[in-house]
Amino acid sequence: MGETPTADLDDVAVEEPLELRLVQGEEERPLSVTLRTPGADEDLVLGLLYAEGAIACADDVLSLSVWRRGDVSAPNVVRVELRSGFAALDILARRTFTSSACGVCGAGSIERLALRARPPLWSGPPLSPALVARLPSGLRARQPLFTATGGMHAAGLFTPEGECLAVREDVGRHNAVDKVIGWALRAGCLPLSDHLLAVSSRAGFEVVQKAVLAGVPVVCAMSAPTSLAVEVAQGFGVTLIGFARGARFNVYSGPERLGKF
Amino acid sequence: MGETPTADLDDVAVEEPLELRLVQGEEERPLSVTLRTPGADEDLVLGLLYAEGAIACADDVLSLSVWRRGDVSAPNVVRVELRSGFAALDILARRTFTSSACGVCGAGSIERLALRARPPLWSGPPLSPALVARLPSGLRARQPLFTATGGMHAAGLFTPEGECLAVREDVGRHNAVDKVIGWALRAGCLPLSDHLLAVSSRAGFEVVQKAVLAGVPVVCAMSAPTSLAVEVAQGFGVTLIGFARGARFNVYSGPERLGKF
Repeated sequence: MGETPTADLDDVAVEEPLELRLVQGEEERPLSVTLRTPGADEDLVLGLLYAEGAIACADDVLSLSVWRRGDVSAPNVVRVELRSGFAALDILARRTFTSSACGVCGAGSIERLALRARPPLWSGPPLSPALVARLPSGLRARQPLFTATGGMHAAGLFTPEGECLAVREDVGRHNAVDKVIGWALRAGCLPLSDHLLAVSSRAGFEVVQKAVLAGVPVVCAMSAPTSLAVEVAQGFGVTLIGFARGARFNVYSGPERLGKF
Repeated sequence: MGETPTADLDDVAVEEPLELRLVQGEEERPLSVTLRTPGADEDLVLGLLYAEGAIACADDVLSLSVWRRGDVSAPNVVRVELRSGFAALDILARRTFTSSACGVCGAGSIERLALRARPPLWSGPPLSPALVARLPSGLRARQPLFTATGGMHAAGLFTPEGECLAVREDVGRHNAVDKVIGWALRAGCLPLSDHLLAVSSRAGFEVVQKAVLAGVPVVCAMSAPTSLAVEVAQGFGVTLIGFARGARFNVYSGPERLGKF
């Protein structure tokens, strides 16, 4: 008989709400609340605003201030001032209404996605299987929070040569993707032609949708894709790789970008 | 040199939108859209409406009809008629507004959760570690969609003796939980005192929140919990077990319900 295996709470993946408030002059309005892992909050907010269609480039953001958990007056709050002012509120309200009315990812949403999709251009040589095989370990080597907690997703951007440009971690798969796309927005790398997006997780509709909006031609997921992710990838010309586990992986869409094996 | 490893799309986890429409007399209004795996849609809708506070028991639903993908007129649509009529729309609109204003899981949300939480009662003998050890295999044996696709979450309800009452699968972790709680609602088992909820995945805020609303005293996750899930479990007296991998598991909250080892 031993002790009950009570866990060390220091090793738990941190999940906290982040409230986004829009500022215009002296006025301030609540925009949304996201559950996320603190860290790279600026990237998260930029990626989120981009995915929602509220901004098209980093210059559309006039100011962005983060109040972290320790702040007494406004913990876990981001105040953001956009070039378009409060107009983003209308965009987001309309989006919520439309997605309720016609399907978040039904025909209506796919049509709206088409309006904002960036062409997923790949100008380099055929994608080498050896490069795809290196992505899982390349991503895994840059996931300190996963190593510590075992409960954290990651998204990473890679060049056609396999160089890793940025990796971001989060308890939410979609947040990790928003964070790397937000990073790319700040770095002026958008659209992400000739880039690979690797995700430590499964690839659902949301992940591929965000890739399509950022112009990413190749998405590589460590785990399973969903049927809707495959449909969207096929429809928009994104190469979708799943179950990437070293030398073994599956291609669900756009196999023509891969070299012969 | 071989062929590009193009995947068999028959084995892909199905993800489709489900639109929920509220009906009152001759009138119909859109309520929400959820990405989910088709199957047990009635359970999903009941669990979702319960989690959102729109219904308190199965009798609050007067009628519920599902139009599946193949239906030409309204594919992937559920029409539901509630005893409260369109009042649910106000509840949900207010919830969205409040969560934008005060944090989906900040102080405001925790207070609102407290108003609707069911006491997590456990009247049986101390939870045997041997029983906890059997949950992963008990759940895994009832996951045919995971076996086929490798990309599917599951949630299951178990008795204190380890008997499995229901398992539901879905690409969304929260949907799988809504589906089993919807099943319990239909079966008249709510509140779920003396039940264990096992999830194949991580345990985030949402999973524990849904358990708290259904009165589940013990939540057992196969993977990592988040910090917010632990906080909520501790605050509401739920025993939270994570990284359940046979004889090895961690206890993050409520260890007093477990017997000596």
